[in-house]
Amino acid sequence: MTLDQEIRAMGERALAASRKLAAFTSRRKNAVLEAMAVELEACRAELKKVNVEDVADAVKAGLSAAMVDRLTLTDARIDGMIKGIREVAALKDPVGKRLSKIVRPNGLVIERRRVPLGVVAIIYESRPNVTADAGILCIKAGSAVILRGGKECARSNRFIADAMAAGGKKAGLPENAVQLVQSADRDGVRALVQLEGLVDVVIPRGGEALIRAVTEQSRIPVLKHYKGVCHVYVDETADLDKALAILENAKCQRPSACNAAETLLVHEAVAEKFLPKAAEMFARRNVRTRGDATACRLIKGCAKVAPKDYETEYLDFELNVRVVKNLKAAVAHINKYGSHHSDAIVTEEPKHAKRFLRDVDSAAVYVNASTRFTDGGEFGMGAEMGISTDKLHARGPVGLDELTTYKYLVHGTGQVR
Amino acid sequence: MTLDQEIRAMGERALAASRKLAAFTSRRKNAVLEAMAVELEACRAELKKVNVEDVADAVKAGLSAAMVDRLTLTDARIDGMIKGIREVAALKDPVGKRLSKIVRPNGLVIERRRVPLGVVAIIYESRPNVTADAGILCIKAGSAVILRGGKECARSNRFIADAMAAGGKKAGLPENAVQLVQSADRDGVRALVQLEGLVDVVIPRGGEALIRAVTEQSRIPVLKHYKGVCHVYVDETADLDKALAILENAKCQRPSACNAAETLLVHEAVAEKFLPKAAEMFARRNVRTRGDATACRLIKGCAKVAPKDYETEYLDFELNVRVVKNLKAAVAHINKYGSHHSDAIVTEEPKHAKRFLRDVDSAAVYVNASTRFTDGGEFGMGAEMGISTDKLHARGPVGLDELTTYKYLVHGTGQVR
Repeated sequence: MTLDQEIRAMGERALAASRKLAAFTSRRKNAVLEAMAVELEACRAELKKVNVEDVADAVKAGLSAAMVDRLTLTDARIDGMIKGIREVAALKDPVGKRLSKIVRPNGLVIERRRVPLGVVAIIYESRPNVTADAGILCIKAGSAVILRGGKECARSNRFIADAMAAGGKKAGLPENAVQLVQSADRDGVRALVQLEGLVDVVIPRGGEALIRAVTEQSRIPVLKHYKGVCHVYVDETADLDKALAILENAKCQRPSACNAAETLLVHEAVAEKFLPKAAEMFARRNVRTRGDATACRLIKGCAKVAPKDYETEYLDFELNVRVVKNLKAAVAHINKYGSHHSDAIVTEEPKHAKRFLRDVDSAAVYVNASTRFTDGGEFGMGAEMGISTDKLHARGPVGLDELTTYKYLVHGTGQVR
Repeated sequence: MTLDQEIRAMGERALAASRKLAAFTSRRKNAVLEAMAVELEACRAELKKVNVEDVADAVKAGLSAAMVDRLTLTDARIDGMIKGIREVAALKDPVGKRLSKIVRPNGLVIERRRVPLGVVAIIYESRPNVTADAGILCIKAGSAVILRGGKECARSNRFIADAMAAGGKKAGLPENAVQLVQSADRDGVRALVQLEGLVDVVIPRGGEALIRAVTEQSRIPVLKHYKGVCHVYVDETADLDKALAILENAKCQRPSACNAAETLLVHEAVAEKFLPKAAEMFARRNVRTRGDATACRLIKGCAKVAPKDYETEYLDFELNVRVVKNLKAAVAHINKYGSHHSDAIVTEEPKHAKRFLRDVDSAAVYVNASTRFTDGGEFGMGAEMGISTDKLHARGPVGLDELTTYKYLVHGTGQVR
């Protein structure tokens, strides 16, 4: 069997499993998740042993410390996976929810209800916990899942996926509802994203290059999160203490997150007053800056910014600073250079807030709050698959609701046209 | 300027126009639509003259009578376009609608509201009225539109698009909110579907080949409607008179529609009783049939069906007939051979209805009603862009709501994480 045939057979098995899983009640799905949690707990020691082999190979191969860290499974991370499964089990099941209902003049009753997507393919980088985190969200949403993780933690991924399948089986999970693509080959990804009619959606999780490659190859709809180039705009009417607290949080609380700020925009009327305060914070928090002429004058050690910096997701203690003429210029900057993820205005003028909310074309637009809140948990959805920067289907956090589709159920008594 | 550069410049102009249009109130958009209707009415005679040239060329080129008919603009069709514009103006504006609102424990108020998609590209075959019908739906939904119609009615499309832009301009429509790709070249389509970051969604309207080609080339999300292979399943508990009326309507009322039935499935317990009745109707309505052994025995002139027939959208007085063992087999047939569009069960047993509704994986699933109701108007949405057989973003009729996206508006008072 060629790789293409193998992957196609996997898609067909997933589709068959998805038909069975779609009919599962919430109670049955939750029992499956609990059985998976129990199974992972039961084989924790073995998992750690397997993971040690992946880690040893990664170290031998000279992977960066950050990468080795990401693929290492500590007890705390295994606890996190197990806790995550139970948290998802506790979430409200989106499947079956009635979204609308109308009665037509001819007596037809037309309902629209959430139903599972069917088969979800997840392509992710070398973080073994994603195997569980992403897999269980799909199962809870009633879909079968095909996982394809980074090759650097192939053993750990295999172990976790097998443990999930084995645990799930004890509680009646259909066979092949959770499958893992074993091939480390890039061709495995290419074959997977050609499975139109078998796989309903592809979700790449990882760096921009991975996501672009998947999008270019895929004939299946892709739910994607390119990057987070987020902004804080300090309006002329801003409360500057609020602005400073929001900026510090948006930049420094967790700079590696996609919802961290990468660029500060300041209205020219408050730049002279605000930037020196900001400069103190930058010094205290070790934030490196790149700015325009005014910023360079007011912030010690500020480098000159280049246009491409405005499009860069630093994921680090690094920040662009630009002084703008007015709100309109701030909005234009954000829509041009941003990634349509999360952007905030700090203002005390409701009209400015309203205009910013209307005109900034991003998944989440904030007034007087940190961009760091764009997150399934913070938005009250519970666990999430990621943050979509797409406009179709899902925008912003992708939780259980966003992992479903809907169908129309039409109840008649013999109506014809 | 190369074609690629031209199309890219068009995309950039559309994006700029979309930013302005997104801020329009419903009243302003409706004024724009009314001005378009007035303009089209004012230049009706000229439009007919231009269309005569397209028709003459089409006849000369030896196009089929059906194709020539589709591109001919009669007074009735122009009336239809103008009436259509006013009907869309009268529809409720989806933009700004609040979809959800929560207040978090930290005081953040998180709203989710419908907002325009941005820029929509529509690629369609040779029906000049689509230029207006599709264009105005996008404008009403607050998006700029790039139209690319079939080359056989290039003059008529150009005239209609220009009339819409000219009429719209009188009521303040931003320039370039409605644009038409002039190139008859297929490369025009290819260039258009590469405009990631400028165009938000591509909607191909036409035959399956066009849609497949667009989907393969596109790096932008595609909203698609492949085909309608719809089923009527007559359950063992069916009221056979109801079943006959539904079948006749689903097959014969307008066989060229995508929601017309292509296959009849009959439970084996009622086949001997139902198929002879159906055969009388087929004879009366000139429906040609292809069936399995039982169908061939019970229906005069029934040809032998082949598996590929089960996947064929006849769009004609032609029907597959298959006798199935039970409900489960009917559902399996529909999920295997159907196009996930519209499928009906005729049954008097609520449990069977419930199972069919749950297990058939289609956009619209019917109990005791004709599949012909899958339509924006019949579903109470008003005008529609088409019927989506996709599962992401929009499923079933694509009306104004489905031509929008949403964003999160987060109102804070200085919250940080």
